[in-house]
Amino acid sequence: MATKNWKDLVAEKRERQLSQIPKEWIIKNLPPKETLNVVDFPENCGLLTEKEVEITNTGVDVLLENLASSIWSAVEVTTAFSKRAVIAHQLVNCLTEIFIDRALRRAAELDKHLKSTGKVLGPLHGLPISLKDHIPIKGIEMTMGYASWVGRYSDKNSAIVDVLEACGAVLFVRTNLPQAIMWAETFNHVFGRTLNPFNRSLTPGGSSGGEGALIALKGSPLGVASDIGASVRIPAVFNGLYGLRPSYGRVPYAGCINALEGQEAITFVLGPISDSLEGVKRFMKSVVNHNPWIMDPKVIKKPWNEDEYRLVGHGAGQRLCFAILWHDEIVLPHPPIMRALEHTKQALLAAGHHVVDWKPLKHLEISNVYKILSAGAKEDFLKVTSSSLEPIISTMDPSVDYETSVPSDLPPSRMMVDGVSAYEFWQTQKQRSILRQEYWDHWNATVSMTGTGRPVDAIISPCAPYVAPPHGLNRNINYTVICNSHDYTALVLPTGLTVDPILDVPKPSHKFFSTMDRANYELYDPAKFKDAPIGIQIIGRTLEEEAVIAMGEIVDSAIKAKIKPPTASL
Amino acid sequence: MATKNWKDLVAEKRERQLSQIPKEWIIKNLPPKETLNVVDFPENCGLLTEKEVEITNTGVDVLLENLASSIWSAVEVTTAFSKRAVIAHQLVNCLTEIFIDRALRRAAELDKHLKSTGKVLGPLHGLPISLKDHIPIKGIEMTMGYASWVGRYSDKNSAIVDVLEACGAVLFVRTNLPQAIMWAETFNHVFGRTLNPFNRSLTPGGSSGGEGALIALKGSPLGVASDIGASVRIPAVFNGLYGLRPSYGRVPYAGCINALEGQEAITFVLGPISDSLEGVKRFMKSVVNHNPWIMDPKVIKKPWNEDEYRLVGHGAGQRLCFAILWHDEIVLPHPPIMRALEHTKQALLAAGHHVVDWKPLKHLEISNVYKILSAGAKEDFLKVTSSSLEPIISTMDPSVDYETSVPSDLPPSRMMVDGVSAYEFWQTQKQRSILRQEYWDHWNATVSMTGTGRPVDAIISPCAPYVAPPHGLNRNINYTVICNSHDYTALVLPTGLTVDPILDVPKPSHKFFSTMDRANYELYDPAKFKDAPIGIQIIGRTLEEEAVIAMGEIVDSAIKAKIKPPTASL
Repeated sequence: MATKNWKDLVAEKRERQLSQIPKEWIIKNLPPKETLNVVDFPENCGLLTEKEVEITNTGVDVLLENLASSIWSAVEVTTAFSKRAVIAHQLVNCLTEIFIDRALRRAAELDKHLKSTGKVLGPLHGLPISLKDHIPIKGIEMTMGYASWVGRYSDKNSAIVDVLEACGAVLFVRTNLPQAIMWAETFNHVFGRTLNPFNRSLTPGGSSGGEGALIALKGSPLGVASDIGASVRIPAVFNGLYGLRPSYGRVPYAGCINALEGQEAITFVLGPISDSLEGVKRFMKSVVNHNPWIMDPKVIKKPWNEDEYRLVGHGAGQRLCFAILWHDEIVLPHPPIMRALEHTKQALLAAGHHVVDWKPLKHLEISNVYKILSAGAKEDFLKVTSSSLEPIISTMDPSVDYETSVPSDLPPSRMMVDGVSAYEFWQTQKQRSILRQEYWDHWNATVSMTGTGRPVDAIISPCAPYVAPPHGLNRNINYTVICNSHDYTALVLPTGLTVDPILDVPKPSHKFFSTMDRANYELYDPAKFKDAPIGIQIIGRTLEEEAVIAMGEIVDSAIKAKIKPPTASL
Repeated sequence: MATKNWKDLVAEKRERQLSQIPKEWIIKNLPPKETLNVVDFPENCGLLTEKEVEITNTGVDVLLENLASSIWSAVEVTTAFSKRAVIAHQLVNCLTEIFIDRALRRAAELDKHLKSTGKVLGPLHGLPISLKDHIPIKGIEMTMGYASWVGRYSDKNSAIVDVLEACGAVLFVRTNLPQAIMWAETFNHVFGRTLNPFNRSLTPGGSSGGEGALIALKGSPLGVASDIGASVRIPAVFNGLYGLRPSYGRVPYAGCINALEGQEAITFVLGPISDSLEGVKRFMKSVVNHNPWIMDPKVIKKPWNEDEYRLVGHGAGQRLCFAILWHDEIVLPHPPIMRALEHTKQALLAAGHHVVDWKPLKHLEISNVYKILSAGAKEDFLKVTSSSLEPIISTMDPSVDYETSVPSDLPPSRMMVDGVSAYEFWQTQKQRSILRQEYWDHWNATVSMTGTGRPVDAIISPCAPYVAPPHGLNRNINYTVICNSHDYTALVLPTGLTVDPILDVPKPSHKFFSTMDRANYELYDPAKFKDAPIGIQIIGRTLEEEAVIAMGEIVDSAIKAKIKPPTASL
């Protein structure tokens, strides 16, 4: 491994990355820095043909149909998304590895296969899929945001790569993440900072921020992200997308790399981000039906369960009872979030479902359990960074310039606390298990208030107490971390709403739950969050992927029905 | 909790235990200490009526039938097993809590229910079930072998107790275990040492040694044991019984108490011990069909899968391929074990199955992973024992008398090593995950040698490199711990064989794998192990409970067919 200085390694890597981009795809007329919303730029920049615009604006289900019926070839589709991904990258800096040549060779093979056999290779035949930069592909460099790892090439595929390729997918780019994957924003010394395409002064979130920004710009129809506290869901919600945090043991993680290896209490799970719920569903169904437990002993033998998808066990979805978590008694969400929750409530009532309030239980204690990650983090980070002397990232504040700072001037990192003993670590794990059981009992007890004879079918919750905030300010993951601690399945949905300076005026001050709550209140100004999408999170119970996706479809339809004005009959 | 001296607490508790035994059940003509094999004593001691002998000699399936059809009442069955349990206790010291009054009240209610409704309460209606002494029952004292915990009464049921009672079981006694449940023998300061009923100079194993000894004497038809390294399987095999170590997340553990709480890498799983395979099956089927995931969030939602039990996925059981692990390359098993493996092999071949050799992979490294348990054990044990100053058990050698020893004279405990940091602990967990993946791949790769088109269906392995050894000498759990590390389902079967001084003569010395191997070789003398039963272990993959039970039935039948001489036709 490298023993060069980190700045040299970064320079070397950036040059190599630039060489992966076809020269003719370099945009000359990029919008100026001051242009915050760049969502429409790819379609209008002139690099994409009309057909390429059409292909990249198409959802996963129709893409797969058109690929299967040879209306579009895999090469065409791969080319279109590759071009748009490269455009996106120039706007928001979302890519790490770019391997379009490999992808086009693969696409050509798929086209040949379809032509010669008349059959698709698998359920994802020809679909371009992007991957977060900790999912190894044989022969491709992977740094995971560490300068120390520049020059590290993977010697084998991760299990998910094998599964996706066996299903017919075309892998074409990997995407940016924070150093060590340990932040809910996206910045590292190797690739720099990823921006939010709806408003480049805002963060796309993290740790799967590259995926979020890329897919929002339609540079990929489907991405493989991962979640250890927020990392699928925050980038999905901040970029107006769908994203799923599956339970542990559903999607194979074998062969992936991350920091804090051996910490097995709260671990990464891979999950999809897509601009359609169909994309999320196709990913999950394809992966779990490919017997991933054969390659990964930690995967539970559970193929896609169509009964669960039909909501057997949830009254066949006829009259569901949702519970809304308006706030977690730690931090009150900003006005746009509250409006989206109310909007969702009205949509669900209009669709004939029950809606009750969710009473939070010990969310502050649950968030404290997250110290599981810092129990041995310092030793872990120091071990990796010592070879290149790269600074350990301790803030996402863009005013801090790590390249010119004296290390001692940097703010202290919250993860760089002294480690604890195994015995102390066990006490935190024990506390987590107790809280998980209590929450489970709390959920079961809602059977008395739903009127359905069942406990609450799903919780609808904010993902964060704000929409995408300015860079450096995404510090609260309490609304998402509960699903990692308690292993709940959670789906993020966009509501179709964005921050509206008229509807989302600041509210009068309330009695603050905490200093964090006060700081959050003071942060709010609708102008700051211009154009930011607003999403919500649907939380189901452990291993309820099928049911949560099905309930997501119900909520999604209800919201869309409410937004769409009735069309006049012709 | 108690702050009295441990000897006072023990005296108090023993008196209370004695008071739980009906006076008329105290045996006057107990066999002398020198009588080693006491298996036949209960039937011949005169305390049991002829009908009680018949009832207690009956297997679980017929017991349940006779209970359901009111041939025997629950009160009759409970009385019979209670009496036999109390006899067993006087022979081998296997019980901790004895709550026969509670059990008889419960049995009477069940009889009333059946009479008034014509229906059984559940699939275990009227069946007496014993429990290891770390499974709380509301209102009943539970010490878990700690003098410090004398006087501690449980304020609620564990989940498994709720499930079993809802299924109609009658809980009647709890059984002995080692202090802190951390040994593969059964001795603690509160209740003393449990003996092996086949040869009281031998250990019944542990940590569920009380269950093993009790069930071998037919003082209970079915017991709930638990396994963190060997603890269901060693007592099952040393006492000639059936026992299952299910995978994590199948049987609810919520509400149980153990040492090292918060250590969640290698944890206890509850599993049944019975003198029939039908008992094991009925337990598993009843429990997993009672939706235990509703009460315990760590349980996987997987009801009994009849397809898996019919061995769909294993060629419908028609021509299975078993692999025999003859030795683990650490310690060569004693001659009786090798004979039982060969016997099993011949039986399976005669029944038309394939048998190949299993190549062990890094078993020594796997056994080293077990240091996960000692990473914080010292602090844990000291915290509990400090209130009563009871000595921490550091050897099972019966010549060490803790009641009279000066603490500094006691040998050092292998668990009382200094704890490690969370970071170091993570490195061991990481190593365990790597080894687990390697073994999984190794197993998958056997597809090339089975001739069935599938990888090996199950591994047949020793449970230990010896049959039940003399007290203090059961120090090797390498043959069982692999299933806890790798989360394999494992079933113990008796072979019907016992140690035979003519067939099991010592072998010439071999090239030793290790000093442990040499010591094990030198230990062997068939006379020492007189009457000890010989069993084997069938290892299936993660969450394969149904398939492993079904394959167990196949192996069991094959062995029984081989042993039984063909009956002459009339």
